[in-house]
Amino acid sequence: MPDNAKTINIALDAMGGDYAPAEPVKAAVQAASELSDARIILVGPEELLKKELSAYSFPADRILIRNATEVISPEESPVSALRAKKDSTIVVGCRMVRTGEADVFVSAGSTGALVAGGSLVVGRLKGVERTPIAFELPTAGGTGLVLDCGANVDPKPTMLVQFARMGSLYMKHMRGKENPTVGLVNIGTEDEKGNALTKAAHELLKECTDLNYIGYVESRDIPLDGADVTVCDAFTGNIILKLYEGMGKLMLNALKDVLMSSTKTKIGALLIKDSLQKTMKRFDYKVYGGAPLLGAKGLVLKTHGNSDAGSFYNTIIQGHDFSVRGVNDQIAQAFLTLQE
Amino acid sequence: MPDNAKTINIALDAMGGDYAPAEPVKAAVQAASELSDARIILVGPEELLKKELSAYSFPADRILIRNATEVISPEESPVSALRAKKDSTIVVGCRMVRTGEADVFVSAGSTGALVAGGSLVVGRLKGVERTPIAFELPTAGGTGLVLDCGANVDPKPTMLVQFARMGSLYMKHMRGKENPTVGLVNIGTEDEKGNALTKAAHELLKECTDLNYIGYVESRDIPLDGADVTVCDAFTGNIILKLYEGMGKLMLNALKDVLMSSTKTKIGALLIKDSLQKTMKRFDYKVYGGAPLLGAKGLVLKTHGNSDAGSFYNTIIQGHDFSVRGVNDQIAQAFLTLQE
Repeated sequence: MPDNAKTINIALDAMGGDYAPAEPVKAAVQAASELSDARIILVGPEELLKKELSAYSFPADRILIRNATEVISPEESPVSALRAKKDSTIVVGCRMVRTGEADVFVSAGSTGALVAGGSLVVGRLKGVERTPIAFELPTAGGTGLVLDCGANVDPKPTMLVQFARMGSLYMKHMRGKENPTVGLVNIGTEDEKGNALTKAAHELLKECTDLNYIGYVESRDIPLDGADVTVCDAFTGNIILKLYEGMGKLMLNALKDVLMSSTKTKIGALLIKDSLQKTMKRFDYKVYGGAPLLGAKGLVLKTHGNSDAGSFYNTIIQGHDFSVRGVNDQIAQAFLTLQE
Repeated sequence: MPDNAKTINIALDAMGGDYAPAEPVKAAVQAASELSDARIILVGPEELLKKELSAYSFPADRILIRNATEVISPEESPVSALRAKKDSTIVVGCRMVRTGEADVFVSAGSTGALVAGGSLVVGRLKGVERTPIAFELPTAGGTGLVLDCGANVDPKPTMLVQFARMGSLYMKHMRGKENPTVGLVNIGTEDEKGNALTKAAHELLKECTDLNYIGYVESRDIPLDGADVTVCDAFTGNIILKLYEGMGKLMLNALKDVLMSSTKTKIGALLIKDSLQKTMKRFDYKVYGGAPLLGAKGLVLKTHGNSDAGSFYNTIIQGHDFSVRGVNDQIAQAFLTLQE
């Protein structure tokens, strides 16, 4: 590692997700070998992780272990679990981000505990009211960011404006979108449509000269590139995110049935297979890494509960990029400037 | 028409939708020829409709015209348009249902005006607090009913219980589902998840012995047969309905790109074409007819704005079935019994 390059420290929850610790550990080894400026700190029971790591060879200074003896399960109530399990991988990982020991914490564990941990343990940036969780979803022309998909089910209108700001900075600095378009999810595009929250947020967003606000977006337009950044309360975000998943499954299963329905279609399937797999990869969440929790004093990245090593690896890369590109500094700076 | 059979009178908005009056008139002629116990009453400008009808031959006593000189456009504010345009097709059609002159009113016009018309002009059944609009969506195993997708963006918990009851009776009597399962849309399946509305409605629904309530359903599960009847506020319902549409388009366009990407895939496309078309038909809203507005003193059926004659025809059949099966009597009876 060259002396002049800053080392990016990435804490990785080795006990989160369905295939822990095997898959996160495998991903850590791959990342440590490929990212010359990264150090992966596996968070979990020391002895167990030592044993898991013994099967691999890797640069010894680039994978460390941080002992954490407890695990928070997705079924536990997030806030009480954070309080009760001080030595859980999520609390330890979040604490490492707060102290600056890690730049990023990646976990496939409980979304609720990660959202609460980002806010309560890592802490919010100055001026940030709530820390939304953002999902990058595949669209016709690329991807779109939808936020909040986290826990803020009854946000204030000002919070939606903050989500718009953080989402814009993310898409600009992570995806190179200059002046990303921002839409507000609503049930119609006319001014009088919507509920009290959307109407109030709409008025506030119209006044934001730092945002490329294009007005209301209907959910129909999200997959069809309605906006680069789509803002909503977390209840709505959750509905969108999970329906994306369910509809994807429905359509894919229907297509499988079509392809397997006769000898003729099976031959057809062989002919379209390569092209189909390439396209379907675009719809695979594993390609996109994890969902960033924005607005905290450091990055918490949530990956899907059934992530494999490839998915963990992509999320580590995403966290690495976020740090190298200084996205959090951009967000911190924007919120400081607005307060002056 | 045999004397002993009750004639079903179906009022049809001849001016609603993108292809009016040509497509609704064409559908009326087909329905009048095929349904021996139905009378179609075209609602719209008399002279125009006479001219349109002159191209067809049909049993003269089975298609009537009811003059209505105005049209409410989807851009107009529903309630003020209803007040200002007393001679609009929507007001005239709803009034015909209220007076019993028509059993059903089918329209591809403004959803908002139809929802408001169903409630204000037709009037609600005794005990019904709000009239939800229900959409039958394709699922892995058949269809599921989602309601409310209409205008009740801030409903009370008791209203969601009523929606569940009306949706269940619809699926039972229209689709032959004995004891249909009822789910409440939420962002998780644990008791503590959700907002104030879902939590309160959840408690009320658990107490309903006349409903097969299975608890919270996540949006992911709606396309995968999570419940026969899925209940939510209209904001959420609208998000679900339109995202269904948008995701369908995204996936279908992606598939088209796959099939057209090379000579090899084009040959594959020819081999799977028949099977694919059959399956895709299941995902075409036109097959399912229209969306019923439930809980009014008669049936208002909203069809898609770009309905063709086939879609209008299917919606007429749906309205006919609804009347023949006495679904509204079932709903009226259920609400009366509950009040006793």
